Amino acid sequence: MRFDGREPLQLRPVHIETNYLKNPEGSVLITVGDTKVICSASIEDRVPPFMRGEGKGWITAEYSMLPRATQQRTIRESSKGKVTGRTMEIQRLIGRALRAAVQLEAIGERTVWIDCDVIQADGGTRTASITGAFVAMALALENLYKTKKLKSFPITDFLAATSVGILESGEAVVDLNYPEDSAAHVDMNVVMTGSGEFVELQGTGEESTFSYSQLQELLSAAQEGLAKLFEIQKEALGGELSSLIESGKEE
Amino acid sequence: MRFDGREPLQLRPVHIETNYLKNPEGSVLITVGDTKVICSASIEDRVPPFMRGEGKGWITAEYSMLPRATQQRTIRESSKGKVTGRTMEIQRLIGRALRAAVQLEAIGERTVWIDCDVIQADGGTRTASITGAFVAMALALENLYKTKKLKSFPITDFLAATSVGILESGEAVVDLNYPEDSAAHVDMNVVMTGSGEFVELQGTGEESTFSYSQLQELLSAAQEGLAKLFEIQKEALGGELSSLIESGKEE
Amino acid sequence: MRFDGREPLQLRPVHIETNYLKNPEGSVLITVGDTKVICSASIEDRVPPFMRGEGKGWITAEYSMLPRATQQRTIRESSKGKVTGRTMEIQRLIGRALRAAVQLEAIGERTVWIDCDVIQADGGTRTASITGAFVAMALALENLYKTKKLKSFPITDFLAATSVGILESGEAVVDLNYPEDSAAHVDMNVVMTGSGEFVELQGTGEESTFSYSQLQELLSAAQEGLAKLFEIQKEALGGELSSLIESGKEE
Amino acid sequence: MRFDGREPLQLRPVHIETNYLKNPEGSVLITVGDTKVICSASIEDRVPPFMRGEGKGWITAEYSMLPRATQQRTIRESSKGKVTGRTMEIQRLIGRALRAAVQLEAIGERTVWIDCDVIQADGGTRTASITGAFVAMALALENLYKTKKLKSFPITDFLAATSVGILESGEAVVDLNYPEDSAAHVDMNVVMTGSGEFVELQGTGEESTFSYSQLQELLSAAQEGLAKLFEIQKEALGGELSSLIESGKEE
Amino acid sequence: MRFDGREPLQLRPVHIETNYLKNPEGSVLITVGDTKVICSASIEDRVPPFMRGEGKGWITAEYSMLPRATQQRTIRESSKGKVTGRTMEIQRLIGRALRAAVQLEAIGERTVWIDCDVIQADGGTRTASITGAFVAMALALENLYKTKKLKSFPITDFLAATSVGILESGEAVVDLNYPEDSAAHVDMNVVMTGSGEFVELQGTGEESTFSYSQLQELLSAAQEGLAKLFEIQKEALGGELSSLIESGKEE
Amino acid sequence: MRFDGREPLQLRPVHIETNYLKNPEGSVLITVGDTKVICSASIEDRVPPFMRGEGKGWITAEYSMLPRATQQRTIRESSKGKVTGRTMEIQRLIGRALRAAVQLEAIGERTVWIDCDVIQADGGTRTASITGAFVAMALALENLYKTKKLKSFPITDFLAATSVGILESGEAVVDLNYPEDSAAHVDMNVVMTGSGEFVELQGTGEESTFSYSQLQELLSAAQEGLAKLFEIQKEALGGELSSLIESGKEE
Repeated sequence: MRFDGREPLQLRPVHIETNYLKNPEGSVLITVGDTKVICSASIEDRVPPFMRGEGKGWITAEYSMLPRATQQRTIRESSKGKVTGRTMEIQRLIGRALRAAVQLEAIGERTVWIDCDVIQADGGTRTASITGAFVAMALALENLYKTKKLKSFPITDFLAATSVGILESGEAVVDLNYPEDSAAHVDMNVVMTGSGEFVELQGTGEESTFSYSQLQELLSAAQEGLAKLFEIQKEALGGELSSLIESGKEE
Repeated sequence: MRFDGREPLQLRPVHIETNYLKNPEGSVLITVGDTKVICSASIEDRVPPFMRGEGKGWITAEYSMLPRATQQRTIRESSKGKVTGRTMEIQRLIGRALRAAVQLEAIGERTVWIDCDVIQADGGTRTASITGAFVAMALALENLYKTKKLKSFPITDFLAATSVGILESGEAVVDLNYPEDSAAHVDMNVVMTGSGEFVELQGTGEESTFSYSQLQELLSAAQEGLAKLFEIQKEALGGELSSLIESGKEE
Repeated sequence: MRFDGREPLQLRPVHIETNYLKNPEGSVLITVGDTKVICSASIEDRVPPFMRGEGKGWITAEYSMLPRATQQRTIRESSKGKVTGRTMEIQRLIGRALRAAVQLEAIGERTVWIDCDVIQADGGTRTASITGAFVAMALALENLYKTKKLKSFPITDFLAATSVGILESGEAVVDLNYPEDSAAHVDMNVVMTGSGEFVELQGTGEESTFSYSQLQELLSAAQEGLAKLFEIQKEALGGELSSLIESGKEE
Repeated sequence: MRFDGREPLQLRPVHIETNYLKNPEGSVLITVGDTKVICSASIEDRVPPFMRGEGKGWITAEYSMLPRATQQRTIRESSKGKVTGRTMEIQRLIGRALRAAVQLEAIGERTVWIDCDVIQADGGTRTASITGAFVAMALALENLYKTKKLKSFPITDFLAATSVGILESGEAVVDLNYPEDSAAHVDMNVVMTGSGEFVELQGTGEESTFSYSQLQELLSAAQEGLAKLFEIQKEALGGELSSLIESGKEE
Repeated sequence: MRFDGREPLQLRPVHIETNYLKNPEGSVLITVGDTKVICSASIEDRVPPFMRGEGKGWITAEYSMLPRATQQRTIRESSKGKVTGRTMEIQRLIGRALRAAVQLEAIGERTVWIDCDVIQADGGTRTASITGAFVAMALALENLYKTKKLKSFPITDFLAATSVGILESGEAVVDLNYPEDSAAHVDMNVVMTGSGEFVELQGTGEESTFSYSQLQELLSAAQEGLAKLFEIQKEALGGELSSLIESGKEE
Repeated sequence: MRFDGREPLQLRPVHIETNYLKNPEGSVLITVGDTKVICSASIEDRVPPFMRGEGKGWITAEYSMLPRATQQRTIRESSKGKVTGRTMEIQRLIGRALRAAVQLEAIGERTVWIDCDVIQADGGTRTASITGAFVAMALALENLYKTKKLKSFPITDFLAATSVGILESGEAVVDLNYPEDSAAHVDMNVVMTGSGEFVELQGTGEESTFSYSQLQELLSAAQEGLAKLFEIQKEALGGELSSLIESGKEE
């Protein structure tokens, strides 16, 4: 039994509230247990300089935490004047992950800006950000598609992320909260498509190591959790948009 | 009649949700029309270097906007590596205003960190921040007081803020939303105590000017709006904490 | 009686030396008691990117203090690598104030850069900066106008600033020096036009408050001091340029 | 057959020159094909503030590339005034990986600073950095151990890293050079201990995905390459130091 | 004959106004032709961390130009967020030069902060800064000495600086103004003591070279100009303080 | 006799390995005793903005030290977020020196980027950088010339640098290593052309001074050392390229 009474392969309660903000082209508030992230997707009608003239789009992400998302107040990165390595790592991951589920040629020379702002942090903020940002991005691109600015719908598959880890007890569990994350021997983030393909796999044994068989156990735990997350995404997006995504997958 | 059908001296709907976050010692989500700000108050058990050994506390504020709080995406200050002049001006104002309603000696050598994060912006974010931050601070200090860490309750009066302005029609109005704010000839922010004393008055005729009689009209509009805001603060804080504040005022 | 023997409504000795530097299009050394500020106005033949193509000009200001303008040496902002909030607030105020006395369309797509460098500080550096910068700007624009680069003279009225405050004695005084400023309960900066219209009003009761009747007293003190400052500006600018400004006011 | 004629599971020629620099406590020049990295290990007799008093040591890494390590000259991060996200990600990875092979308690309150400076880059600079840095660190710690500053030898196992990927042909290969890396569908970095345990696994399908069976193929390719790298490390370190490490493993 | 009618070995008019500012322990306004620099010397009762406990003092300098000291407005270094290489070079030179004329042990653990702020620039700002800063420093140290805070007077000799150069005509001249400096083939700054010893020699043939005999000619021109500058320094410092310096020289 | 047994006018062993790196257009590893610097020259087909349209080229240099080039680890400038004054001074010197040996018109609108990265430091890193960078630049320009991108060979003479100083014994020596440099009373860097003309002369008596006769002694020591360095450069460059440079000198 886990700290909060969950089964090893049980996610915390997940809720995705769509169109949480009025200004962005797409936005959600994703809640995973006590972790809460506002994800927004903004469409800009140009690409960064290094991509101009290639006829394809770009997806980039920024990630931040409110100072009191955490138990101890964290100093703002704007006050420090620089973004930490952890933040950079996370925002590079979010952008890279989302790009794997989108045909960049189908967006045209546009940039999708993803903003993930963590309102409250209790472990798994980067995976909640990816899962929520996918929904915000789908809403923003649906809008572009419906207003005839795109010839085809650019999303090719569902995409979500979760964390898995090996607790001190040696048990493999899914969706670690902060106390579990701090105590875990191994911590792995898995980003997958709805079809079950890996997009990103980041496993680390901070001051520890893990074996091949533990890896297999972790991956199978992740798969179970992700299956549930895809259902929640579909529910949040509704039947019509979910079908659009499914049809992209078939191509 | 105003853009959104309000009377000149009518505030937008205001709501203050207390204890919005689980980590900060005090927090609220304040909603003023479409403007939404998360305000949190964190207690740190030391003061900045320049105040050490004086036996009194300090209150300081930080203010930020999510990139898509605005209609056009705003670049993050953490990405730019510096805080804009506007942000600095606002966070200095919030801190200064709150300090006027608190006996700093009664806090002891502690710092109250105020964080105002604008989730959605539709005009009046700095005044909403002050009004909400006062409530978050009161909740945090109540906690300190109830756990016997303070000898007396340090808040001496209610404190709230609103904006007033003169529209192109020449009419003085209260609580301008973003379209009104952009079009107004004169824009004034007024911070007041529950007893009707001024704490801060900032009036500016950007590329315009205003007369003494217009000033009088603006101040009376502000007073009316603020009376309503104090009621909403009292309701959010509840009877017991409101009475504590009222008793501080009498001293 | 005040620290330095002045009457409540008496300014310190004010002197404006025009054309203090040889390079700027306009420059002054303004002396207000022991406060000394070099103000220069530079004309640049383009506007910032966000204003291009609008056919109007822009006025922007920068403010700085020499490290030993103050009693204790202040660290240079260039060494710290960033501009403080106080400096940003002041330079935004100077720019905004000056723009209220100029028809930006009449300048064409040009920027007037105002530089206010405080050589010696004894209170009231921001208001001395505004009063001096107005004269430097007038000299620079006169030059443009006389060389036929402008169709009409763009300045529409005189503009000056002073501080007022309420001393511990409860008395309202004008033009506070540094010891008065440090001890005052309320501090207010007033920017006005020669016609007596308000341009900017910034009153603050740092860790204190003020009543409506005190506000009225402060404003009337400001008005008296400003009347004297307009005379000094006229003398510094000379009859011909003063008339040009007066004629702009009439339009 | 690969671009450079190698077999799929064949490493490029690897050479580790120990004690390359005279000043650091440990240093190597590691050459992997045309990739060349100077790795140095410096011992500092204190730990960062957040670890003081815990009685254990810390290992941290910095990574940089000479501007012309690359085909096109890269702007120096010192000139830009900030470290890129890529660099931060790599230096966090190097530090985390090395910490997994060391008992931090056995170092005492000391910091091992690892510096990896890429002289020439042809793919795999982060994995070459880890493989080389392990050797530099072992040399530095051997020194501490031999001068009786440590009670036990703190390294618990060999540690090396390599990259694996899936080429456009669908073939899984080990130790990608730059042209292969740019064209690969999937790119994975694997850090392992001499005992065959995973320390870090980072697989990414940039704008692509990979299946479970491809993952298995990649991991088995990595294992083969790493076996060869451990041999090269042992040769570089010599019998005595290698035995010390082996004995740590047994504990 | 030179642009401005001077003889080759003739300085521009030099004037040193002592105690120009009221706050610093020592200050001057030095005027060299159209070049004007405010130099101030501030005494701080501690030394930088790297010198603590050595029982000796430190002298450090900062240099800056007002934006319109120059013909074209120069962007403020505080706005750019960094100090240029030219500024760094100059402030390192000023500090190093002054330290050569002072017995640092005799100051005790104090720092003399030199601030050189160029109000108007017409060539030779760094040499004017050194010549003026020496006087400001002497005034500040005299003060310390007279108030019995120092056992002996720490200045060991006069110190001044001038520039010399070779014009396009091939003639060696002293004290170049800006047009001469821009056109000169060789530019050399010479810092000397009152006894005729070199403290610093920086000669450069920007995109040009110079011979040994030209070097000799330049040095003799410098010597002549410096002799005049020492006289002007003595006059500014007065007989008593000049004697104090002379007596230090004899030791 | 010197610390390391050298005669006063004897250089340390100097070796220049050409084409040390595969990517830059020209590169060397220069070894001067224990000082080792990688110098590379990169050709960019444009000039900085301030030179566009003038039809001539530019040469600019950057200088850096690996953290453990020094006895104590030096913090990376990229981690500090800024370049130190010492680095700026050195890179400005290198660029200025090299420009004196090149006809910038003959390069066309191209920039030669010089990168000097100190791998190991034992005194004289800036002079070794200049001596090595000249060779790297010659190799890069030879390449341009041979591929017919230049009409004439732009280098007009050999160029090298060395340090000279006066030891505590009063003796003038050439090519100081780090212990000598730290103890020397006077330190001078001399940059000369193959024809014996001065390009740059920087002499400083840190907390000391030097006489005219000492200067003469230093310059003659420098000349002797430089004669040897020009021979080593010629050998490194080979007969053909050396002749090209010699012929440029004649013009």
